[in-house]
Amino acid sequence: MTLPNVAQNFRQQSPLVFCLTNAVVTNFTANVLLAAGAAPAMTNLPGEAGPFASVASALLVNLGTPTTEQLTAMREAVDSASAAGTPWVLDPVAVGALPVRTEFAKQIVGQRPTLIRGNASEILALAGWDSTGRGVDSQDSVDTAIAAGRELARKHGSVVAISGEADAIIDAERTTLVHTNGIGLTKVTGGGCALGAFCAGMLAVHEDPFEAAVAAHGFYGLAAEKALANSGGPGSFAVAFLDALAATEPHELEELNYEELPHA
Amino acid sequence: MTLPNVAQNFRQQSPLVFCLTNAVVTNFTANVLLAAGAAPAMTNLPGEAGPFASVASALLVNLGTPTTEQLTAMREAVDSASAAGTPWVLDPVAVGALPVRTEFAKQIVGQRPTLIRGNASEILALAGWDSTGRGVDSQDSVDTAIAAGRELARKHGSVVAISGEADAIIDAERTTLVHTNGIGLTKVTGGGCALGAFCAGMLAVHEDPFEAAVAAHGFYGLAAEKALANSGGPGSFAVAFLDALAATEPHELEELNYEELPHA
Amino acid sequence: MTLPNVAQNFRQQSPLVFCLTNAVVTNFTANVLLAAGAAPAMTNLPGEAGPFASVASALLVNLGTPTTEQLTAMREAVDSASAAGTPWVLDPVAVGALPVRTEFAKQIVGQRPTLIRGNASEILALAGWDSTGRGVDSQDSVDTAIAAGRELARKHGSVVAISGEADAIIDAERTTLVHTNGIGLTKVTGGGCALGAFCAGMLAVHEDPFEAAVAAHGFYGLAAEKALANSGGPGSFAVAFLDALAATEPHELEELNYEELPHA
Repeated sequence: MTLPNVAQNFRQQSPLVFCLTNAVVTNFTANVLLAAGAAPAMTNLPGEAGPFASVASALLVNLGTPTTEQLTAMREAVDSASAAGTPWVLDPVAVGALPVRTEFAKQIVGQRPTLIRGNASEILALAGWDSTGRGVDSQDSVDTAIAAGRELARKHGSVVAISGEADAIIDAERTTLVHTNGIGLTKVTGGGCALGAFCAGMLAVHEDPFEAAVAAHGFYGLAAEKALANSGGPGSFAVAFLDALAATEPHELEELNYEELPHA
Repeated sequence: MTLPNVAQNFRQQSPLVFCLTNAVVTNFTANVLLAAGAAPAMTNLPGEAGPFASVASALLVNLGTPTTEQLTAMREAVDSASAAGTPWVLDPVAVGALPVRTEFAKQIVGQRPTLIRGNASEILALAGWDSTGRGVDSQDSVDTAIAAGRELARKHGSVVAISGEADAIIDAERTTLVHTNGIGLTKVTGGGCALGAFCAGMLAVHEDPFEAAVAAHGFYGLAAEKALANSGGPGSFAVAFLDALAATEPHELEELNYEELPHA
Repeated sequence: MTLPNVAQNFRQQSPLVFCLTNAVVTNFTANVLLAAGAAPAMTNLPGEAGPFASVASALLVNLGTPTTEQLTAMREAVDSASAAGTPWVLDPVAVGALPVRTEFAKQIVGQRPTLIRGNASEILALAGWDSTGRGVDSQDSVDTAIAAGRELARKHGSVVAISGEADAIIDAERTTLVHTNGIGLTKVTGGGCALGAFCAGMLAVHEDPFEAAVAAHGFYGLAAEKALANSGGPGSFAVAFLDALAATEPHELEELNYEELPHA
């Protein structure tokens, strides 16, 4: 994989990432994208979401706090992205734990997201397997969700990324574990949600979505490691993480610790 | 009171706090809960709010920026919490100053919130007394609102917490003043709103809601004092406050300066 | 111009700024206002927005992420502000790039906002001139938009402020360029949006809206320069900026570098 090149393209092209995301993380998500070198944009309005999804570089659909109107905008945006060939990410936040979004996610995943990113409980639930999630927390390990991720990947032609102690990136043929220390991100709200937006940006600048997802998770994790070393708690970690995203250079991905698992 | 034990339970049990809160403070509220050791969760969608309120450890209803749909979700969540015995907090933001929420708050307070938390102007207005509030700022002192707080506590079987220079915690029989230096919190948006969420978490881990509220206000105030000592303005205060919430230990509540007022 | 006096009035009067703004920047906007010494307040609810606009010191209407309900509240608030003589700011975020808000902005600008604040692409689009904007980013330079700004100023009796490398403040008779180094603000979401809210507060405390806008842009830019000197990336910049807003003194505006352009 040529991970540094993917990150280099991201910096040079500054992808315009259209985020339909949750109310808790809008600000952090936009700041993550800006710090990393992308251009964030958000609108949740039907009549705008469709047109914008066709001109944006990539789309994020995050189900964290949907409203009735936002769900309409999401359908419109996904239709438009699909028609335009815009890559899009589905983040099935709390799917399995909450009913309306679970039904919605099971419908919209049929429109073949380029990437599905979630924690193990969400991936298990989206695949219809047993899970023990209780909201945004994952109560399941990444290992237990890899087989469910493979099933989703094959069924919908998507890359699937499962966040956890190690992150698993999966498609129909490949499984890679990305090893970074992301413990700091678990104490800041939106660590995973903003990663979904960052992945969307990477999808926009690289042809192979599997490699783009590995690059996104690796770059994000390396920045999180720096931030952990430069902070004294969750408040200063979030600040240091934004600084680290801006300061991390694409070539640092040469040192990323990742592991290709045998094809199952 | 065994305040350190309450905080210890909070850390060990990591309560799942369902927040129906305002758009200005969602991120800060979630980060406060995470830093303190709880698990935040939010959804404002009818059809999700009810089911979730029955499985969450506690519920916060904060009236800061309601939408029509969120008000529906709030009714649903409060019904569900009441039926399930889930403790819940009402934060009557800007009640008295703004008409729709004032009417809503006067209705929903009849469903006997476990805790009502506000500033003096909001407590006076919710009790139907004269107030001079002009929005989220309190123009009234805590002292002037204590009698109104007692009336609310007796009428609705609630604990009432009034935030100010000293915080007053009130129930039908008891009034305690918690003395900490929270001046830093007055220059950061959401200082009071996130305290409401933190209180909800404390209610979930301790049987006596009065003691839980005292513990929450004390712990929060001690963290604010540390943050003030470690910051140079409102921006760095907010960061230091999250760090301090994570670093403060339950046993530090042994040194809390609080004062039991005579029964009126 | 007596810029230090304007800032001094702001500090002494602590204007109550009612913000109808976008979901990405609510928290940052409120913290900017608090740090600078004002009182922020937000509600997006029809039935509350009208009454509140008539008692607030000033109103901000920011079109970043409108909902159907918020657009209704905005109409109500602008009607009420107009009737009450409350100064108001229109921030036409992404107008030109997104259709619903573009139509809305072209209608509501007819109600003669006290100030219109945007980037060059937004000002060009609002005036109906050609622009190359692609969302919240400006692809046009401030220079190219000054003539469009003058046209808007004359047509609607508004002051027009165009943010860019230098900020242009324009009314029917005057054009002033404010020179500060605001590069740090371009890497933090909401830098421009919160400036709109800050401008609204300045309008509330000074009779001449042109001078108020120059004072707001100058004060904000001086704080941004301090923050840049005290930070190591976009995360720490945002924190340092809030600290700098609180620490900057009105008299520092005596040293502001601004330039009056000849009347065109």
